Amino acid sequence: MALIVQKYGGTSVGNTDRIQNVARRVAEHRGRGDQVVVVVSAMSGVTDGLIKLAKQITPLPSEREMDMLLATGEQQTIALAAIALHARGVPAVSLTGAQAGIVTDGVHTKAKIQNITPDEVHRLLDAGNVVIVAGFQGQTEEGQITTLGRGGSDLTAIAMAAALKADLCQIYTDVDGVYTSDPRLAPSARKLPEISYDEMLELAGSGAKVMQLRSVEFAKKFNVVFEVRSSLNDNPGTIVKEETTSMEDVVVRGVSIDKNQAEVTVEGVPDRPGSAARIFKSLADAAINVDMIVQNVSHDGGSRVTDISFTVDKPDLLKASSVIDGLMPELGIRGFATDEGIAKLSIVGVGMRSHSGVAARMFEILAEHGVNIGMISTSEIKVSVVIPLADGDRALKAVHEAFIG
Amino acid sequence: MALIVQKYGGTSVGNTDRIQNVARRVAEHRGRGDQVVVVVSAMSGVTDGLIKLAKQITPLPSEREMDMLLATGEQQTIALAAIALHARGVPAVSLTGAQAGIVTDGVHTKAKIQNITPDEVHRLLDAGNVVIVAGFQGQTEEGQITTLGRGGSDLTAIAMAAALKADLCQIYTDVDGVYTSDPRLAPSARKLPEISYDEMLELAGSGAKVMQLRSVEFAKKFNVVFEVRSSLNDNPGTIVKEETTSMEDVVVRGVSIDKNQAEVTVEGVPDRPGSAARIFKSLADAAINVDMIVQNVSHDGGSRVTDISFTVDKPDLLKASSVIDGLMPELGIRGFATDEGIAKLSIVGVGMRSHSGVAARMFEILAEHGVNIGMISTSEIKVSVVIPLADGDRALKAVHEAFIG
Repeated sequence: MALIVQKYGGTSVGNTDRIQNVARRVAEHRGRGDQVVVVVSAMSGVTDGLIKLAKQITPLPSEREMDMLLATGEQQTIALAAIALHARGVPAVSLTGAQAGIVTDGVHTKAKIQNITPDEVHRLLDAGNVVIVAGFQGQTEEGQITTLGRGGSDLTAIAMAAALKADLCQIYTDVDGVYTSDPRLAPSARKLPEISYDEMLELAGSGAKVMQLRSVEFAKKFNVVFEVRSSLNDNPGTIVKEETTSMEDVVVRGVSIDKNQAEVTVEGVPDRPGSAARIFKSLADAAINVDMIVQNVSHDGGSRVTDISFTVDKPDLLKASSVIDGLMPELGIRGFATDEGIAKLSIVGVGMRSHSGVAARMFEILAEHGVNIGMISTSEIKVSVVIPLADGDRALKAVHEAFIG
Repeated sequence: MALIVQKYGGTSVGNTDRIQNVARRVAEHRGRGDQVVVVVSAMSGVTDGLIKLAKQITPLPSEREMDMLLATGEQQTIALAAIALHARGVPAVSLTGAQAGIVTDGVHTKAKIQNITPDEVHRLLDAGNVVIVAGFQGQTEEGQITTLGRGGSDLTAIAMAAALKADLCQIYTDVDGVYTSDPRLAPSARKLPEISYDEMLELAGSGAKVMQLRSVEFAKKFNVVFEVRSSLNDNPGTIVKEETTSMEDVVVRGVSIDKNQAEVTVEGVPDRPGSAARIFKSLADAAINVDMIVQNVSHDGGSRVTDISFTVDKPDLLKASSVIDGLMPELGIRGFATDEGIAKLSIVGVGMRSHSGVAARMFEILAEHGVNIGMISTSEIKVSVVIPLADGDRALKAVHEAFIG
């Protein structure tokens, strides 16, 4: 008898037909003798509808009250899912995040799980029930309702799997699993049977939209093996787990592109200690997320100056420009330029550690296709380059073909 | 500084404009230096929408899960109401029934409040907040979410007012207060400035739709003075309180009509101990609510037999008929007749206690208007008669004119 945690996202529970479909799938697992914990999101559209109501009242509603409001979405789904299981003759009990023992810190709208006391979940499982837990939410020690922010339901599932020492955690979504690339851009892209946490993290961090980073980080930290698979069919998905030796045989696991970045180049920054720190601290204070950073030292006449380039999310570009503009007098910056017409192309694979020349090969492929490289940034298992947005799709296809086929 | 509990029903919070209107009203009270606790219902339509979703899955959803589902309606309103108060610069905190300390028994969908521990409400009030409490819901000692059934939000407000020893409890609704009769039927009907608990109970029990009996009973038990008034204007409403000596000057406080009843007459019941008990126990077991009961002893040949008439809610008539049909062989009943074409007309007033001949006067008025009386039932402060449905409106108007003007 295995203990399985299954998570179903908003699309998978988007209406009562789909909720009944989830119940059918859960009932099948239970019919095999497994214990099943189901984590669900709000029905698709419900959360957006509630946000819209709040925004009708004021553009910046209180975060505590938004948690109070939004937590109702998942609470509705758990009740309906339990009702759908009952209708199939399967005993089931729904639990809010608080009832399931999920304790978070008090940072409303983006709370962190501090601990899970799954006594009630165990008790209900042992009594023969399917237990349905509201994703995305928890409660502080003081009894305040909190939500976990984007990707919160995945996090609930993975944290619950860790706390319950589950045998398997399945993340049901509207895609079949993790692909070597976006099949719409690289027609030969194929589903990966398995991928390491680190590769998944690098892919998620470089534009692949399967899961939020924090859930994968949590799974890696607590060594929770999980499977990403579709709720619309019975195809096996992609297993995400600690890397194995055999994984290193594959040099490039995936190729991703992020078209949502913009580039800022700060020119002629006097090469004094603390200049870069001042720039990126100011950006962080303005809640601007900086991705790639590249710095080159150059000589401008007699004094040493540097050019610093970095990328930010496109919607943050205006804010970033105004931050840099404000720093110019203080730091003695010569000027800065911005470019929205870029894309970040990345290759990811743990095999890079043991295979040399991977970055060089990527640059070569791009050169062969006449794609100009702007910034370059490498990690142990990733190479990212900034290229012109207009060349993005073509470059991704070429790199995918060369490395993966 | 007064402590006021205000309750707003589903229509009063039916959309974000109306919620902002509620916030305006609450802010005004707070501006006068009062402490305000607001109890709200689900936005009108929300509860019905959730019930519809559950019924799409199965006709008889689990009551525990229905509570889990429906409790989200009020939770959404409290968050939106808090957000609307913030938008006016008023500090406000929302609390679910559980967070507000409302402990109920475990009878899902119609739980009874067992006790309220309003420590958190007091703490938040003392810190200068308006406290917004979700009506209609509570939590068992074991942490199960429960709902209180029909009229539950009124009950939350009155129970909270009792627990907080509030100075005033205001029930905001879509009518101006309690009227001497339905103004659509009796054009001279007028709003009552005050009414006693008992009169309010008798009126509610005889067809007037202002409030559920249980909330008035609770208010009477804990001596909570409350005002029924409109959320759409600033007119004073009707104060409901313990009766005063001056109330007895008025013989008839109100005239009501209930057109939702049907009559059953069981004929020739052998006059043996236990016959009536057997009949009404069987009806109660079938969850059929019996209102009026009248029994006359007659002689059928040698043996004493009785006719027993009673009224039930119209939708229960079929079920009641089948119960009686099943009892016929056992009890030796001769037969039974049913009549859906009836109405129950009632006059209510504590002044009846000290004024004699009130019932006789009512019968006289009806006779003058050619209205035939079927059953008669009297209590200390009420006279009810069953009359033909077709005569209902005419009879109500005549009785209202004669007693009230």
